[in-house]
Amino acid sequence: MQPLDIITRKRDGLSLQQEELDYLVSGYLSGSVPDYQMSAFLMSVFLQGFDRQEMADYTWSLVNSGQRLKWKDLPGPVVDKHSSGGVGDKTSLVVVPLLAAAGLYAPKMSGRGLGFTGGTIDKLESIPGLKTVLSTEQLHAQVSRTGGAIVSQSPELTPADGKIYELRDVTATVDSIPLIAASIMSKKIAGGANHIILDVKTGSGAFMKKKERAVKLAASMVGLGERLECQVKAVVTDMNQPLGHAIGNSLEIQEVLSALRGEGPADLRELALSLTAHLIKDAGKASNYEEAFNYTAKLLDEGWGYEKFREIVEAQNGDFNLLENSEIPAASMQEKIKSSQRGYIVSMDASKLGRASLYLGAGRLYKGDDIDPEVGIEAHRKVGDFVERGDSLLTLYANDRHKLDAGLQEASQAFKVQEEKVSSLPLIYQVVDGESAANIYIEAEQK
Amino acid sequence: MQPLDIITRKRDGLSLQQEELDYLVSGYLSGSVPDYQMSAFLMSVFLQGFDRQEMADYTWSLVNSGQRLKWKDLPGPVVDKHSSGGVGDKTSLVVVPLLAAAGLYAPKMSGRGLGFTGGTIDKLESIPGLKTVLSTEQLHAQVSRTGGAIVSQSPELTPADGKIYELRDVTATVDSIPLIAASIMSKKIAGGANHIILDVKTGSGAFMKKKERAVKLAASMVGLGERLECQVKAVVTDMNQPLGHAIGNSLEIQEVLSALRGEGPADLRELALSLTAHLIKDAGKASNYEEAFNYTAKLLDEGWGYEKFREIVEAQNGDFNLLENSEIPAASMQEKIKSSQRGYIVSMDASKLGRASLYLGAGRLYKGDDIDPEVGIEAHRKVGDFVERGDSLLTLYANDRHKLDAGLQEASQAFKVQEEKVSSLPLIYQVVDGESAANIYIEAEQK
Repeated sequence: MQPLDIITRKRDGLSLQQEELDYLVSGYLSGSVPDYQMSAFLMSVFLQGFDRQEMADYTWSLVNSGQRLKWKDLPGPVVDKHSSGGVGDKTSLVVVPLLAAAGLYAPKMSGRGLGFTGGTIDKLESIPGLKTVLSTEQLHAQVSRTGGAIVSQSPELTPADGKIYELRDVTATVDSIPLIAASIMSKKIAGGANHIILDVKTGSGAFMKKKERAVKLAASMVGLGERLECQVKAVVTDMNQPLGHAIGNSLEIQEVLSALRGEGPADLRELALSLTAHLIKDAGKASNYEEAFNYTAKLLDEGWGYEKFREIVEAQNGDFNLLENSEIPAASMQEKIKSSQRGYIVSMDASKLGRASLYLGAGRLYKGDDIDPEVGIEAHRKVGDFVERGDSLLTLYANDRHKLDAGLQEASQAFKVQEEKVSSLPLIYQVVDGESAANIYIEAEQK
Repeated sequence: MQPLDIITRKRDGLSLQQEELDYLVSGYLSGSVPDYQMSAFLMSVFLQGFDRQEMADYTWSLVNSGQRLKWKDLPGPVVDKHSSGGVGDKTSLVVVPLLAAAGLYAPKMSGRGLGFTGGTIDKLESIPGLKTVLSTEQLHAQVSRTGGAIVSQSPELTPADGKIYELRDVTATVDSIPLIAASIMSKKIAGGANHIILDVKTGSGAFMKKKERAVKLAASMVGLGERLECQVKAVVTDMNQPLGHAIGNSLEIQEVLSALRGEGPADLRELALSLTAHLIKDAGKASNYEEAFNYTAKLLDEGWGYEKFREIVEAQNGDFNLLENSEIPAASMQEKIKSSQRGYIVSMDASKLGRASLYLGAGRLYKGDDIDPEVGIEAHRKVGDFVERGDSLLTLYANDRHKLDAGLQEASQAFKVQEEKVSSLPLIYQVVDGESAANIYIEAEQK
């Protein structure tokens, strides 16, 4: 087998075989296939696409580049949840405890933030003492004991995906549905869950700006699940405005505590209950979605999720008592942005607020940058809300005057108020299951 | 400017600007743009194409990566000839002396052979003592004195083209009309000629197997000439069977001598006269093509071309007397392949004969391989010829038994004889000038 022949076939729009994809992926990881051939291949995939079978085979190649977690000895279904990333998206931190409280096993691996979207791991690390790096054995022991864990992506899983992602990042081959779908799904498959729920976000603060592409990505991943022996469902949700009110690491953790106490923002509650309910239903713990949803709401409202969160945080060495009693906000400076006119909020731009939070110090422009867990933004309103002139729209928290100014400048462009009435934004656009995915997913458009 | 933005624009099918192309090309040559970004860019061009202006701008970027020869002090037009490469194609060695004999200036730079096509420089170097590496000053002095020179491509011209070609070779981005057209034309433009004739070959022994693609490549290069201030005409010619009878370095040089004596094969004579006549007409030395053709034939038949070839060979230190009196063939072994049936020759496959010649030792499988100037093939017949059972079709010359066997095995599959009458193959399919090129060349198809 020659890398050149494989690239040529893909370039010419032909379908590749499992062994060809394995050869390229393992060769790239080992160094026998050089960067320049892999990037030519990736650009071919970007422009020529993958068909369903190729996408599944390529996902397997990524999975097979590393370890795959096994959970067979656990007495219940293993479930996983993934979000394509957004601003203020702390949903995993509410969902995992609820799943564990429902008797499911939820070993969740998450990433760090980059650019204007935050990362679950960064948020979690704002809890004093909490460890996010666990060995496979430690992870297994914790999940087995508590039902849940939220840890950093293990470098032993899908190492080829990490190396390929770095190359995609510098060769204009990131924004490709089959490559994104395979990358996400390879990590999930390697994680070993039986049932997966995917939250594919769309809007100004999401990677997929357009709903049609988000639906297509969702359908691609759901379709992949069928070929990879794992049940996958996806929910396409709004990311034109931030989820919840808090943006920034410790602010978001506090919002998670509120949500788990039943006091959080309505959209965060709704989304967390919905994602959890889908998994509870799919794992056979409820006979239909409504029953699953009601059960999940009960778990939340009776505080079982909150207690499970405490258990997970403490299992990962976090100081939950200190967290519960933290002085919030801890940042030294704060400044409000007020509405200069009376009317309805027509936009509360998630990408601008994400960027403002980044400027405040809550996120990273480059991998490895330090972040400040204390800073961030609180959004007091949602799209569709009515405000009087002088009403507070946002509060920004910072520890540095220059950063605060940069954040204020960006955030002040994030909202728009108008006299005419404005509807609120929907939260969930569409649920994509195996059946609907088969109709959405069109091979010729897999680019 | 960022390489990533430029790749993204090309990937998305947008047109690039001169400064973007300059930035990539010069950055790649200097090393500031890495291989993997250049290969992603090249694959984007392969799949998205270049429009006319981009192709011209990219050609300029290649030209500007090195020196450009200047011939302003010469008292007559400077002309150049290029062939896309074929089996038994020794035409340049007949054309250059004829051009010089006609009072034009023809500084011809040529390449070495790779794969089953031979290289003019390898052929020429079979002449004892002949030098093909000349400095710019030496080249200038020789052309100024004799009117002609045939030398190796100077590394000071279009160095970026050489580096990019090596990358294309290992990233499946060779077979792209805009990239081929720009690569060829950049070398011609850097060579500084005012009038250029291109021989674009098509058929089994050519790079362009299909006539339609050869015509498109021809039209692309002719169109480029218009934007690059230089008159370019192209002739699309047959390469389903070898040109002339001889394949292999010293055998081909002997065939060149025959042709210049007026005794060579009809197809070689016809093609050399035609290419020369186009340049003579375009350079204003004749009022129409017919007049130019007749004048060229007269130069050939009266021996002026032969004398000019002697002059050029001697100017490059070659021993012409030794050449004229060489014992040919010099190879130690020869074996004939005879027809096993009576009938008409329906094919005399140029690619198989080229490969057989390569196996005999006349060519290179890899860059830098040694070649044996003495070995090769003589084809005694052409497609359409009638043969009796037992008539010789080919004679193979070798210096090594194993190589001879390998050559025989390949060559014996090169021809097919059938009972029904077969027409001979045309030599020249189409002449593409500025006017016809404008009608052939379609932007959306520039892939």
